[in-house]
Amino acid sequence: PHRNRKSKLLFPVQPGNLCRASTQEAFRIEYDTFGELKVPSDKYYGAQTVRSTMNFKIGGVSERMPVQVIRAFGILKRAAAEVNQDYGLDPKIANAIIKAANEVAEGKLNDHFPLVVWQTGSGTQTNMNVNEVISNRAIEIMGGKLGSKTPVHPNDHVNKSQSSNDTFPTAMHIAAAQEVNEVLLPGLKKLQNALEGKSKEFSQIIKIGRTHTQDAVPLTLGQEFSGYVQQIKYGVARIESTMPRVYQLAAGGTAVGTGLNTRIGFAEKVAAKVAELTGLPFVTAPNKFEALAAHDALVELSGAMNTVACSLMKIANDIRFLGSGPRSGLGELILPENEPGSSIMPGKVNPTQCEAVTMVAAQVMGNHVAVTVGGSNGHFELNVFKPMMIKNVLNSARLLGDACVSFTDNCVVGIQANTDRINKLMSESLMLVTALNPHIGYDKAAKIAKTAHKEGTTLKEAALKLGFLTSDQFDQWVKPKDMLGPQ
Amino acid sequence: PHRNRKSKLLFPVQPGNLCRASTQEAFRIEYDTFGELKVPSDKYYGAQTVRSTMNFKIGGVSERMPVQVIRAFGILKRAAAEVNQDYGLDPKIANAIIKAANEVAEGKLNDHFPLVVWQTGSGTQTNMNVNEVISNRAIEIMGGKLGSKTPVHPNDHVNKSQSSNDTFPTAMHIAAAQEVNEVLLPGLKKLQNALEGKSKEFSQIIKIGRTHTQDAVPLTLGQEFSGYVQQIKYGVARIESTMPRVYQLAAGGTAVGTGLNTRIGFAEKVAAKVAELTGLPFVTAPNKFEALAAHDALVELSGAMNTVACSLMKIANDIRFLGSGPRSGLGELILPENEPGSSIMPGKVNPTQCEAVTMVAAQVMGNHVAVTVGGSNGHFELNVFKPMMIKNVLNSARLLGDACVSFTDNCVVGIQANTDRINKLMSESLMLVTALNPHIGYDKAAKIAKTAHKEGTTLKEAALKLGFLTSDQFDQWVKPKDMLGPQ
Amino acid sequence: PHRNRKSKLLFPVQPGNLCRASTQEAFRIEYDTFGELKVPSDKYYGAQTVRSTMNFKIGGVSERMPVQVIRAFGILKRAAAEVNQDYGLDPKIANAIIKAANEVAEGKLNDHFPLVVWQTGSGTQTNMNVNEVISNRAIEIMGGKLGSKTPVHPNDHVNKSQSSNDTFPTAMHIAAAQEVNEVLLPGLKKLQNALEGKSKEFSQIIKIGRTHTQDAVPLTLGQEFSGYVQQIKYGVARIESTMPRVYQLAAGGTAVGTGLNTRIGFAEKVAAKVAELTGLPFVTAPNKFEALAAHDALVELSGAMNTVACSLMKIANDIRFLGSGPRSGLGELILPENEPGSSIMPGKVNPTQCEAVTMVAAQVMGNHVAVTVGGSNGHFELNVFKPMMIKNVLNSARLLGDACVSFTDNCVVGIQANTDRINKLMSESLMLVTALNPHIGYDKAAKIAKTAHKEGTTLKEAALKLGFLTSDQFDQWVKPKDMLGPQ
Amino acid sequence: PHRNRKSKLLFPVQPGNLCRASTQEAFRIEYDTFGELKVPSDKYYGAQTVRSTMNFKIGGVSERMPVQVIRAFGILKRAAAEVNQDYGLDPKIANAIIKAANEVAEGKLNDHFPLVVWQTGSGTQTNMNVNEVISNRAIEIMGGKLGSKTPVHPNDHVNKSQSSNDTFPTAMHIAAAQEVNEVLLPGLKKLQNALEGKSKEFSQIIKIGRTHTQDAVPLTLGQEFSGYVQQIKYGVARIESTMPRVYQLAAGGTAVGTGLNTRIGFAEKVAAKVAELTGLPFVTAPNKFEALAAHDALVELSGAMNTVACSLMKIANDIRFLGSGPRSGLGELILPENEPGSSIMPGKVNPTQCEAVTMVAAQVMGNHVAVTVGGSNGHFELNVFKPMMIKNVLNSARLLGDACVSFTDNCVVGIQANTDRINKLMSESLMLVTALNPHIGYDKAAKIAKTAHKEGTTLKEAALKLGFLTSDQFDQWVKPKDMLGPQ
Repeated sequence: PHRNRKSKLLFPVQPGNLCRASTQEAFRIEYDTFGELKVPSDKYYGAQTVRSTMNFKIGGVSERMPVQVIRAFGILKRAAAEVNQDYGLDPKIANAIIKAANEVAEGKLNDHFPLVVWQTGSGTQTNMNVNEVISNRAIEIMGGKLGSKTPVHPNDHVNKSQSSNDTFPTAMHIAAAQEVNEVLLPGLKKLQNALEGKSKEFSQIIKIGRTHTQDAVPLTLGQEFSGYVQQIKYGVARIESTMPRVYQLAAGGTAVGTGLNTRIGFAEKVAAKVAELTGLPFVTAPNKFEALAAHDALVELSGAMNTVACSLMKIANDIRFLGSGPRSGLGELILPENEPGSSIMPGKVNPTQCEAVTMVAAQVMGNHVAVTVGGSNGHFELNVFKPMMIKNVLNSARLLGDACVSFTDNCVVGIQANTDRINKLMSESLMLVTALNPHIGYDKAAKIAKTAHKEGTTLKEAALKLGFLTSDQFDQWVKPKDMLGPQ
Repeated sequence: PHRNRKSKLLFPVQPGNLCRASTQEAFRIEYDTFGELKVPSDKYYGAQTVRSTMNFKIGGVSERMPVQVIRAFGILKRAAAEVNQDYGLDPKIANAIIKAANEVAEGKLNDHFPLVVWQTGSGTQTNMNVNEVISNRAIEIMGGKLGSKTPVHPNDHVNKSQSSNDTFPTAMHIAAAQEVNEVLLPGLKKLQNALEGKSKEFSQIIKIGRTHTQDAVPLTLGQEFSGYVQQIKYGVARIESTMPRVYQLAAGGTAVGTGLNTRIGFAEKVAAKVAELTGLPFVTAPNKFEALAAHDALVELSGAMNTVACSLMKIANDIRFLGSGPRSGLGELILPENEPGSSIMPGKVNPTQCEAVTMVAAQVMGNHVAVTVGGSNGHFELNVFKPMMIKNVLNSARLLGDACVSFTDNCVVGIQANTDRINKLMSESLMLVTALNPHIGYDKAAKIAKTAHKEGTTLKEAALKLGFLTSDQFDQWVKPKDMLGPQ
Repeated sequence: PHRNRKSKLLFPVQPGNLCRASTQEAFRIEYDTFGELKVPSDKYYGAQTVRSTMNFKIGGVSERMPVQVIRAFGILKRAAAEVNQDYGLDPKIANAIIKAANEVAEGKLNDHFPLVVWQTGSGTQTNMNVNEVISNRAIEIMGGKLGSKTPVHPNDHVNKSQSSNDTFPTAMHIAAAQEVNEVLLPGLKKLQNALEGKSKEFSQIIKIGRTHTQDAVPLTLGQEFSGYVQQIKYGVARIESTMPRVYQLAAGGTAVGTGLNTRIGFAEKVAAKVAELTGLPFVTAPNKFEALAAHDALVELSGAMNTVACSLMKIANDIRFLGSGPRSGLGELILPENEPGSSIMPGKVNPTQCEAVTMVAAQVMGNHVAVTVGGSNGHFELNVFKPMMIKNVLNSARLLGDACVSFTDNCVVGIQANTDRINKLMSESLMLVTALNPHIGYDKAAKIAKTAHKEGTTLKEAALKLGFLTSDQFDQWVKPKDMLGPQ
Repeated sequence: PHRNRKSKLLFPVQPGNLCRASTQEAFRIEYDTFGELKVPSDKYYGAQTVRSTMNFKIGGVSERMPVQVIRAFGILKRAAAEVNQDYGLDPKIANAIIKAANEVAEGKLNDHFPLVVWQTGSGTQTNMNVNEVISNRAIEIMGGKLGSKTPVHPNDHVNKSQSSNDTFPTAMHIAAAQEVNEVLLPGLKKLQNALEGKSKEFSQIIKIGRTHTQDAVPLTLGQEFSGYVQQIKYGVARIESTMPRVYQLAAGGTAVGTGLNTRIGFAEKVAAKVAELTGLPFVTAPNKFEALAAHDALVELSGAMNTVACSLMKIANDIRFLGSGPRSGLGELILPENEPGSSIMPGKVNPTQCEAVTMVAAQVMGNHVAVTVGGSNGHFELNVFKPMMIKNVLNSARLLGDACVSFTDNCVVGIQANTDRINKLMSESLMLVTALNPHIGYDKAAKIAKTAHKEGTTLKEAALKLGFLTSDQFDQWVKPKDMLGPQ
């Protein structure tokens, strides 16, 4: 019945999978242990990659393995080739592999990695995609024939001393660490700096505080922003405190963590090479069984990002509410006007940067649950939720980092205090009555506030009417400037 | 310090944002209420779209607004133009809009929608992107000048009787309903059918049951699969039971739900047009305030997909464990061999389809939390987590639907029962002792099982040794075939 | 080292487990298949219950199996005894079981159920706790000796034709259905009614709308509340649409779903009895394999409650922001003052009911993830996250239902509109300019709004100054009363 | 209609709220700023507590504020009284407060704290409950009249220099830190030690590895367990790395973080006192605005516990699958038999400790989402999800800690290796072929494995048949003992 209905549709849904169909008409024949397959002539990948595109038509182009993972693989394969050469790999082969791997690391061969995240949970097919691309590109460099597996074999040479089971988690950690260091942390620090600047700029502006969304005792706008600064500063600390375990690499564990078919020292040397190539303090994981079978380090990192997401949600919510208006909101902040806000309401300006930030925060919280579910479901010697986990971790890091930059540049740095409005609200506040507690006690102070509220008068009028204190005493005790700290 | 380190990096991270930079060198000038902007000459979009690309550099190309939303917008804009014509819009303008909107609906203009999900939370910028593209394309059709806003104005004509606040949620519901009907439900039904086939095929194969992962009383392999069938069948019912609320469209609510600047009947007519164009039973939402301010219907749909994800996780886990081996696992099922399983362990075959399915399930659970967080955070007349919510809903529907198809084609239909292994395990089972409960009582039956377990003998040997029953009684009472149902 | 530090602590943490230690000093000896155990003389439970308290010291008293599950078990055991009598169980034994089971169902024996949720994942130990209590109480009724297992045996008689694997999920569904019908749905409907009343009461109050938290075009306060009504109304529909699958009972499936050791018709008769006893439309589950191995029905119900939680979070957030103040907030609503709001700020009143509701909403979202994780992790013939799943489902239903009642009684019914404030904000709004779109176009309207905003004037002043329309035209076109619906 | 149906029910649901109704018939009259209320004569709490029980009938007794929070409040109030005395509080009053607070800290007055978690989101009512109880108990100590507020006033003396807004988060951090140090970390370390012992015990047992749940190359059982050790060891490190921020106390911030109505030095002195009383390194929070408005530190701690939950889920899953059987599972481990496993299947033994652990893990993941949602939703100067957040954090810490102890004592320490089974599976494995890769290449090795699998022969037979190597070469190259590490 669906098929029938479908055929009548004016606008049938395009299957995402079709996107992957190559438009290439020239092919070469390659084989894997399962048989022969046609490979597009203009691609470096081989039979196993093609086979995966046939077996995993899930989600289409937008679900491809993140390019950061591919590039991390390039770094790893280069490092492995260098170390393999130390252990006896033919230097000619090693050099060709190194050159090809470098191109992968540089992102020059991104078009040769068509596989989606939703493949085998070990990422074996992406490891083989990398092996095939590097093998064929190295063969090309050495003047051989694509697909011949000689003189550079994808398994025996490119994957030498490696398994998908240790290379994929290694690439996961390299990619995550790079994204954290190059995108997430710089973004957070930039935002922290901008908020710090605003906190100083606003340090003399006394405003009404709000607790339970209700009027409360005063603080400075600078103090309010100092809380945001602290949140982001701790966010940086939180991310950094998880990194020691992300800097541990599984490489050298091979298939189950034992390091079968590697040489003593291989693991340590590869980690050192990767550290050198990336400028990040990678080391070999002290226990390879844990490094293959669990990805707790990524769950932990994701948890730290989840905390950062909570911070950002809080800050962006505050800023949009404090900037609400222009006439019927709280109106204490004036946010930069970046674009027309409405397709129907002329002249409307919206806190769109806050909205992007809070949407990102929600996404990061969701990504975190996906990572958690994946991280909890490893079995025996291998967790097979690897591609899904790294996809989400990288997505969270990128979205948070980018959102911080966008939020800073397009909102935070341009925030102005609406001092007229701030002063007006502050001076009318009933909660200044709190300053009277130490002098006349909580119960009497409460009566003053309730009377003023009920009768619509000022606190002072109510206080004098109730006869709890003199006019001079009121003026002496209720000074917003004296309410900003302990005495 | 980071900047310094970065500059020395061999493989700097590529900012995702750069991807969006146009390589186009020819521009025209367009303006919005904020001023002039350069627009690439070969693009139909206008100033507001360009402005959004400048203000929201978050996540890059892979984070673009899902194409399904764009196409749903095309359908909606066509429907609105037709209805607007009924209410007096110049037929020449209306026809040009209809033609241009059709091209959007057909996916022909996908390249003209560069905006990312992480923009304003109302999707205003995407609505304006659509308005601009249709306006300019319609202008072109009518022989006008791109960017002139005449004779077809993006706001006054294309967006006539509309607001982002009602069009975006309308497009969300159209896109979600189409994805559910064209991808998710067909995928689920295909899987249900395949499992049903297997359940029948395996109906005579008696096997050991397992509870707590431990040996239990027997059932048929067909019965075991019938549980999976029921789960998927109910999954279809679950999805379908949420659809009545997804079929309700916000169109006609305009800015805050009142329908300001629309005509009486507009909402109903637009919904009817959309229903006609899509073949799906869309109606106008009975309460537009709810339809703009909340997206509970999508949270609900996401919740149903979350339940389906649980079902799939369960089924795929069972199948991979029942198919584990070849020599050291449970080994009751033989799964199709689709590809080489390991880059280091020759001849290894893995349950990769199960892995893709379970990764998808984890992702859907994560997406659901993102949708939940977004859905809970609407304020006043508008929920501003719209783009994030629909992105996740569409992603879940697509991944589940595609994964069901892949799982069915590449795994389920090819599953074979390893009857030798199944028979061997079943005949050795100690839990057949349960059949003795009604005859000799639970306590004596327990002693037989424990004795057999301790001494490594058969149940019968233990039973006779303990003297609880005769050999004939044992043979008469302990018949696996008689243990498959009530008597 | 911890032990040392601990011993010096002034206030050592009390182990929650200690709470379970019986203060009873008199014991009788009971046995199970593992041996003898001392049972407190004043308790009806037996050896297996005691053994569980020894093996599962997790969380203490507050983590006990919810009493709703125990009482549902009472209903089920009574139903099973009645049906077993039909199939030949000695009427004297049956009657004693029925009487004892009734006491369990009435909650009279709650003190005899000490087990925590964190036990075996099938709930076997709670089923045995029930069997032991009913057996001993029935023995007592019949004049026998506690612990003698005669004339009423916990397994052979009380558990006749049953297994933990089918009784526990049956009790789960009975308990969930009762909690939904007696607590959750009545709570939701009460809230719906109260909101409906307010929506009517406020139907003539025109107020500023807010989108993106920013000023937007007007609507009535009644319209705003009608959105909340719709959300809760759909919430009821959402819950109800999941109930058909909750009304399906596993009873009759016994150990793995086959119904081994039951009689044909037993399952149907038990479901009918339970339906009769509870007044709810329970039926036997069409597929017992699914009913034991998966708890998708509870994941689904939890998903519906998760949606309701989103609705409540939205509504409670709106109400507290609209009621914020008294002087520095939005101040459109006056919320009932229920208690002193601050221990330091005298006279402060807070939207505490909203806070309880939003905390409940967050908890329900968390519970839902726990249910989801449990639901996804069943293996083979049995899901072993049963006690955890039902605990969370019952908690969500109870918290939502109770919170709705509390919110209604202590907040919603007492909400007053602050009409002075509402009128003031509405009349000053710049977004009334939207009414001019159809007359002068979006671009000119935008200029008016921006001019008025910049110069702090009224819209009319700005409009006349810009010369876009006459004073009469303005008065004729910009009428809030005419902006509340389509024309 | 519901009411009617309800009245006919045989077993009506008991409203949880009723549980709170005092059975006390003697009352005294107390008042708060809202008026007079009857307080049970035998209770120390006062009017505000009673008012809260009337306004928040949500969830009943099992939803009471965790006793750990109450006791932490006792510690805090004692510390505050001591510091207030330094700043001039009448020593007689201070001493009475200190004595009463001590009783609260010791848990002696637990019965006087009837409030549920679902109250005001700042925990104000619990702070007032504490103030009232301490005030009345101190009055009693000093010979005064309960409810007279003299000579010890709940606000002016017990709450002196404090606000709910800083005391409640302080109590949250004290309670969380104590639970972590006294329950969670000791539990984790105990489990780590037990796993470490097993890892050593099993260090010489060579077994088949499993990746993708499928047969893989060998490792030792000790190596397998070493991965678990590493996971738990890192779990401890993860928890500990979050504690520096949990050790920061908000006390001294009072209402909005400024410290209004406190004295310079108060904050630091209170933190020092709390550190002294608890033996934990508490310090005053460097930024009180953050400490009141956000609870990122608890989200972070919850995230670390979420990671630990993933680790435990993985380990417990492995152990139950490796211990599955007794005859139809993997059967490599023999788990302790702790209790009868089935109410219907005699002699069945189940991995119940693993089930409790995995249920706890699921709960912790759910709790984490609740904490995340609450943590993200703070507004302005105060997060008002405080009671809900701490309830979940404490629950996670307690459940994880207790579950680790239960799992260790009742499962891990008793695990035995089933060496016969392990040896049998290992020797039959096809994946030993991997050792041939460096000698004959991946492709030939794959052919050997496939041939052996297809023909049901040993690897050696297949290898010789295919002629890829000699018998001696096979024996020399394929040695499981040589496959356990790099060479």
